[in-house]
Amino acid sequence: MIYLDNPATTNYKPFSVKMGILEALSKKYSANPGRSSHKLSINAALKILETRELLTKVFNLNNSNDVIFTSGCTEALNLAILGSIKTGGHIITTIYEHNSVLRPLFKLQKDGLIELTIVKPNNNDEITIKELELAVKPNTYMIIINHTSNVTGYTMNIADIGKFAKAHNLVFLVDGAQSGGHINIDMQKNNINMLALAGHKGFYGPQGVGALLLNNAKLQPIKFGGTGINSEQPMPPVISPEAYEAGTTCTPLIFGFDAGINFTIKHFDKINKKTTELTKFLITELSKIKNIKIYNKKNYSAGVVSFNLGDLPSNQVANELCETYGICVRSGLHCAPLVHRHFNTIEQGMVRVGIAYNNTKSQLKKLVFALNKIIKN
Amino acid sequence: MIYLDNPATTNYKPFSVKMGILEALSKKYSANPGRSSHKLSINAALKILETRELLTKVFNLNNSNDVIFTSGCTEALNLAILGSIKTGGHIITTIYEHNSVLRPLFKLQKDGLIELTIVKPNNNDEITIKELELAVKPNTYMIIINHTSNVTGYTMNIADIGKFAKAHNLVFLVDGAQSGGHINIDMQKNNINMLALAGHKGFYGPQGVGALLLNNAKLQPIKFGGTGINSEQPMPPVISPEAYEAGTTCTPLIFGFDAGINFTIKHFDKINKKTTELTKFLITELSKIKNIKIYNKKNYSAGVVSFNLGDLPSNQVANELCETYGICVRSGLHCAPLVHRHFNTIEQGMVRVGIAYNNTKSQLKKLVFALNKIIKN
Repeated sequence: MIYLDNPATTNYKPFSVKMGILEALSKKYSANPGRSSHKLSINAALKILETRELLTKVFNLNNSNDVIFTSGCTEALNLAILGSIKTGGHIITTIYEHNSVLRPLFKLQKDGLIELTIVKPNNNDEITIKELELAVKPNTYMIIINHTSNVTGYTMNIADIGKFAKAHNLVFLVDGAQSGGHINIDMQKNNINMLALAGHKGFYGPQGVGALLLNNAKLQPIKFGGTGINSEQPMPPVISPEAYEAGTTCTPLIFGFDAGINFTIKHFDKINKKTTELTKFLITELSKIKNIKIYNKKNYSAGVVSFNLGDLPSNQVANELCETYGICVRSGLHCAPLVHRHFNTIEQGMVRVGIAYNNTKSQLKKLVFALNKIIKN
Repeated sequence: MIYLDNPATTNYKPFSVKMGILEALSKKYSANPGRSSHKLSINAALKILETRELLTKVFNLNNSNDVIFTSGCTEALNLAILGSIKTGGHIITTIYEHNSVLRPLFKLQKDGLIELTIVKPNNNDEITIKELELAVKPNTYMIIINHTSNVTGYTMNIADIGKFAKAHNLVFLVDGAQSGGHINIDMQKNNINMLALAGHKGFYGPQGVGALLLNNAKLQPIKFGGTGINSEQPMPPVISPEAYEAGTTCTPLIFGFDAGINFTIKHFDKINKKTTELTKFLITELSKIKNIKIYNKKNYSAGVVSFNLGDLPSNQVANELCETYGICVRSGLHCAPLVHRHFNTIEQGMVRVGIAYNNTKSQLKKLVFALNKIIKN
């Protein structure tokens, strides 16, 4: 099997990630941090705090309390959007968003709580300040962008958009599902107020964990339960992170996430260089195929390359790649319908290749070989 | 260390649970089920389906689609409560509830969406149909009960309450956080419409996973994102389980949960017998201590025993147990404030001992010895 569906989840999980999870389940740590006050509970709490401090450092935050662990990037985005509603306000977003941004927004719009503008890209399929400026209204309070598109790999300029957000006094929420681990993100420098991350993609961690990082952002909780603080009160004070992490802390996955983050820090340059080189190589090779349509040829660091072979349904291509050649890619729609509408691929979908650190040039050559065979038949 | 904080999370995790998690992270399964259509994604999806079928069988449901995986019992309860609001309706619950039930309800009450009645127990600290009947109003649509109290171990009669719920045409939601794995629950026989479970307590699974099981229950999603179905629609149809499980499936923890469920099924009689015997033994031994107040002496199967030593603050007792004797228990408030109000322990809290399968009589003897020493000093 050649696995090239890494933007969905990386197939390769480092040994340290697995060991991290097992450590959390060992006698020393298997307890409930932040609830009891015995040694095991404190052992686990201190380890969790280390991960908060790690993320604080990596994304340049001031306070480890601004790191909220979630069950994934979807919960992080839901918390960011549903937890910061300004009734009657206006939100700007783009056609590049994933359903984990669009659907909470559509829900709020449908309920009459917010106005929504979905910005379309320019003729180069890019979103720039020019497009965004046109969308600003007096009641705009938030801008949400997908840092790197899970569909095409297109990566937006967060420095520019951060300046734009600051100039208009907007809350700036970045969906870092595909960029986290692949691209260095400085939240303070780029005026990012909220950054949503997935543990299981660019960080090579386990599925089921993510984080929402806050930088001068105010939120109301959207999930209610035990918080380990102020148990006697009907609602606990809105203190980060406790107010947003109701329920038992997911120590196994946070320990695994921690190991994944450390893995990407340690090998950052190597991972980045290899992913970029392989992506460039693939785009070059794919470009030689007649009638191929490649949807983004400029952004490499997240390792995402999407294409179609003439009019062939993307699902047919993907199925043949898997059945005949043992190559796993994703096809169809990629949970981001407006990207497909923009590129006119709602029917055809797209074949998406996602390259990770452990992929090789030889695997990509096999992919290109297989695609050429598929076209011929 | 003697770990007796098992109602928070079991310290012991079976080998099979750890191996299950590692399997999910192996090359064969580490993919995104329900999204892509390649072999690895299907491998993972089939394993997840097996766990749904297992839970369907164990709790006597008709359809494996009625099993919704969540990030824990808290999310399951939030989904059950916030996903089934009838505006202007009335909900009955009890003082035995955990904050993961009370706080979503207080939020709805505060927002003016529902009326709420919190039923108090009778003179025996029990909730019976008699108390519940008095709470029914014409607009009552739901009753929520904590099957086994995490504070005292008190276990309600779900058969009786199920009949009551059916007679009044109420949605019956059971918080099974502490009973799941310890007590057999037949959802159809007991007219339970929704059952919330935690993976990391009675099932000896990992922290970070739970489930909401549905039996003729209707729900709206409370988290929005990619569902793997109908990606092109602003909101997917409300189909179970996809509509409620937005985001990447947490395969590692579900694989671990599966192994935990199988562990409890295989050893059910043995676990139950041992927990019951140890709990009875502990209550007998504790009863010999002068000035001890034990808050429930009748329910054994969940292994929960709570007490106070005269007027000693529960935190002081717990700290001394940990510092001097290496015994881990929980103290203070237990995320269920109304239980403490009922027993007049808001200030003092309670010392809670939670017994699991791997605990021994000798450990409990050491605990009793330590408590006697603490009283003497």
